[in-house]
Amino acid sequence: MDNTRRARKIVDQMYENDPFSQWLGVELVQVEPGRVTLKMTVRPEMMNGFGVCHGGITFSFADSALAFAANSRGRVSLLLKASMSYPTAVREGDVLYAAAEEETLNNKVGIYSITVTREDGRKVGLFQGTVYRTQKDHLISEEDE
Amino acid sequence: MDNTRRARKIVDQMYENDPFSQWLGVELVQVEPGRVTLKMTVRPEMMNGFGVCHGGITFSFADSALAFAANSRGRVSLLLKASMSYPTAVREGDVLYAAAEEETLNNKVGIYSITVTREDGRKVGLFQGTVYRTQKDHLISEEDE
Amino acid sequence: MDNTRRARKIVDQMYENDPFSQWLGVELVQVEPGRVTLKMTVRPEMMNGFGVCHGGITFSFADSALAFAANSRGRVSLLLKASMSYPTAVREGDVLYAAAEEETLNNKVGIYSITVTREDGRKVGLFQGTVYRTQKDHLISEEDE
Amino acid sequence: MDNTRRARKIVDQMYENDPFSQWLGVELVQVEPGRVTLKMTVRPEMMNGFGVCHGGITFSFADSALAFAANSRGRVSLLLKASMSYPTAVREGDVLYAAAEEETLNNKVGIYSITVTREDGRKVGLFQGTVYRTQKDHLISEEDE
Repeated sequence: MDNTRRARKIVDQMYENDPFSQWLGVELVQVEPGRVTLKMTVRPEMMNGFGVCHGGITFSFADSALAFAANSRGRVSLLLKASMSYPTAVREGDVLYAAAEEETLNNKVGIYSITVTREDGRKVGLFQGTVYRTQKDHLISEEDE
Repeated sequence: MDNTRRARKIVDQMYENDPFSQWLGVELVQVEPGRVTLKMTVRPEMMNGFGVCHGGITFSFADSALAFAANSRGRVSLLLKASMSYPTAVREGDVLYAAAEEETLNNKVGIYSITVTREDGRKVGLFQGTVYRTQKDHLISEEDE
Repeated sequence: MDNTRRARKIVDQMYENDPFSQWLGVELVQVEPGRVTLKMTVRPEMMNGFGVCHGGITFSFADSALAFAANSRGRVSLLLKASMSYPTAVREGDVLYAAAEEETLNNKVGIYSITVTREDGRKVGLFQGTVYRTQKDHLISEEDE
Repeated sequence: MDNTRRARKIVDQMYENDPFSQWLGVELVQVEPGRVTLKMTVRPEMMNGFGVCHGGITFSFADSALAFAANSRGRVSLLLKASMSYPTAVREGDVLYAAAEEETLNNKVGIYSITVTREDGRKVGLFQGTVYRTQKDHLISEEDE
């Protein structure tokens, strides 16, 4: 199985076992090793007390993108620290994309930048996260399904 | 109305209009001007693909604490940038507390540290956030209810 | 005067009055509005107690790039919060580049990503910073020199 | 040798081999395992293009405090990611203190908060950093000097 198919299988398996990403309504747009694009639509129950999207939703969406991108490399990888900036408010009904890029990867640590954009291309969240890469590999079925 | 009662009223009003904090199951434990403690219990639908609490949940919980603490000062305040560290995993059923402390406050900007702990006192999340303070005041009913 | 010349003049003026960037040995490689590339060489007095470059040096270098990029837009802009990741150690004699990109810009706030690389292209620092844009303009001589 | 004396010896040894902390003029005020206070005075060559202290100086000072605090535990520890907020400007001649507190420590990772204050107690920098703890111990002479 090539790396792209393996990456996809790992992410599919993670997503199937990830109730909160499912609650968010995350769709997998693109999965390659170390690189993932997700899509979601902002719903009424995601609003905060100002009638805009809760900052935790945008963060969660970016964090799912990071988790999928980092783990798609095959090793179980855990978020150590992340930072997020909020250049503009997100509204109900907005369709968002989270594009995760791998900045660097070594044996212990991976660094990922995730840009969250609206459908019109405007940036609404900038996330950077550092993962610790454990020695444990993701187990996936090797059969050709 | 004194500042503590006003802070409480602002936060109550924000919480009543905040569907995502309600979804999280956030309870207000303590509210003072610039200082808030929240409580929540981690539910099955908050898990990620590793069977532990999604990092976005802990962040969202801390972010709600920050929003309540910053806005309790009376001015509409918006998150610009936050960072979060994850020292230990959170499990289903864990009862969490988020204690928001005001580090500094000036006319334009407030900085808040939020420590998320489990009921046994162990730190599970360390959040630091910077808000922009708009010129707009929170409107609350001045009547003594 | 066009925006690129104005940007260059502002940055030149800032640099001439910036003793610490001078101590770092920062060179201006490229200056456009909102976009700056700097170069420096790591010297023995920049080492830490492990014989590698002090993390504060890499941060300072990135921070100078951010300050020049943000202010090159014409408004006095001040750093509110920054985060930095260190994917790999920097050694004495390394030649570093800091490339500042403007992620977003609005009336009050600008967000910049700065990537610090060695001459061989390897990333050694990833910096993201948020500036507050004051209402004050940079005063520069309008004459054609 | 007890832990406090060992912590002090490690930090002394690091400081003696740390040209940049020496350039900063860092003094060790207090050293305990996982906990360090440093002092420094802001000099003219530390200014930026606005005539205030360069953000990189405050960061470097906090980073030295983090490095000393983390390594005082006995294991060689390297900064992975840090974030810093700047609530107020620092001026030439200001005397600064950096107090590093250990938030959490486990086998692989330590998290430290460093508060930088002026002599009048005002907070001028809030730093949070995550270190990776290698398996390598600091070698120090065990003799009673």
